[in-house]
Parts: sequence; C-alpha cells; structure tokens
Amino acid sequence: MTHSICFKRELIGDLESIIERVTNALKGEGFGVLTRIDFHSKIKEKLGKEIKPAVILGACNPQLAFEAYQLNTDVASLLPCNAVIRDVGEGRVSVELAKPTAMMEILGNRNLVELARSADAKLQNALERI
Amino acid sequence: MTHSICFKRELIGDLESIIERVTNALKGEGFGVLTRIDFHSKIKEKLGKEIKPAVILGACNPQLAFEAYQLNTDVASLLPCNAVIRDVGEGRVSVELAKPTAMMEILGNRNLVELARSADAKLQNALERI
Repeated sequence: MTHSICFKRELIGDLESIIERVTNALKGEGFGVLTRIDFHSKIKEKLGKEIKPAVILGACNPQLAFEAYQLNTDVASLLPCNAVIRDVGEGRVSVELAKPTAMMEILGNRNLVELARSADAKLQNALERI
Repeated sequence: MTHSICFKRELIGDLESIIERVTNALKGEGFGVLTRIDFHSKIKEKLGKEIKPAVILGACNPQLAFEAYQLNTDVASLLPCNAVIRDVGEGRVSVELAKPTAMMEILGNRNLVELARSADAKLQNALERI
C-alpha cells in the first residue's frame, strides 16, 4: 500500500528565500514554524557525507493541534507538521508539506481524519500562495 | 484500521528529569535530540488554554535517517522521530516514542520498513534503559 504523504510544488529560487516564503505562507494559514532542522548540515557533521541542502521545518496550527490532541493524545507523536524545502538541482527547490490526513489515518480515528482534512486544505492553500 | 503508533512507558518522577533521562537513553542508541517543543506552553500562549505539561522532542539517528533518505526523499516529511514526555497526573509521566515502522509503512516501501525495524529495536532498547 502506497500513500502520497505530502503536497509538493517545485519553485525556482534560492533555498533561504523560499524558506522565508514558505514560513509566511504557513503563517497566513495559522501555522507557526516552531522548529528547523538543517538536515544536510546534520548529515555532514555526523557522517561526513554530502547531500543537497534540505531543511525540515516543524509547523503547527495551535487550534487544530489542540483539538486533535483532545481527541487522542497520541497525536503528539505526529506533531508538528513538516514542511521540507529541498534543493533538487538546476536552481529548482522542492517544497513538500506533509499531509495531515496521511499522518492521522495511521491512528485510525475518523474524527481525527476529519480534523486533518481541514489542515490539509489550509496547507494546500499555503502551498499555492508561496 | 488502527495502528499502535508509539512505544510507551509510564514512569514516576518530575518531567524535566525524565526528559533528561530520555535524552540520554536515546543518545545511547545513536539518536540525538534536535528539537524540543513545549506543547503545553505553546497552547497556553496561542489559545489561552491549560493542558498538562507535554514536551515533544525530535530525535534523529543520522545513519538510519541518511539511509532511509537515500531510499526515498519523502522520508524527510517523517523526520525526526518524536519522543513525547507527558505529565499524566498523580506524579506519573508517560514516555511515548513514535514507532518508525508505523511512520514508514505509510510510504509503502518494503526496504524502508526493514530499515525502520532496526530503528524500532533501538528505540525499544532506549525505552527500557530510561
């Protein structure tokens, strides 16, 4: 069984300015960026391997996260919602927003999946607005 | 369909010292803690609601993460691996480590699930050692 686990869009530009645009677009839909991991730097530092720049932002919509957590505290294991911004070469940057329904489906709670659908919609809006 | 999405254990103690023990136990299995979200503080700050203290740590085993990412870059949307440390009342603290197999299964790649099994084993070891 294969799921599409994220909404994707390719853009032209430099990584840092696209990270800023993603952050602003997420904010416009009520998602604050709480964490940032420079995955490529961590891999270089720990393993000495070179990979193309890839940044993982952890975004959270407090209202939706709170409602989901009230339904099932296991939701915390699936928070925050990732936004991955990756250099894919030739000046292109891939923006990948993890799909909340794909995450919440593994908990098997219909109310949670319903709530995740509204998060999906907000993230799709954010992706269009970047 | 319902999956168990995390390995859980309840401990007696205060939250901060258990966070420290979890961090050390994860380190012993090659998982560094890269991020921390004080979920209850964020909910209080943004929504004015009170919930029991719940901290979400983002942990990553660079070697396993690198191998998984080489198999499928969508893995970045599922990183890092969460460790949730929650006050559940009466002096008890619940430690919940997100199960990598549960996360990787949604990508539907057999090699990834195999790799996730070794991450599962390491996290189960860490949970026992806290």
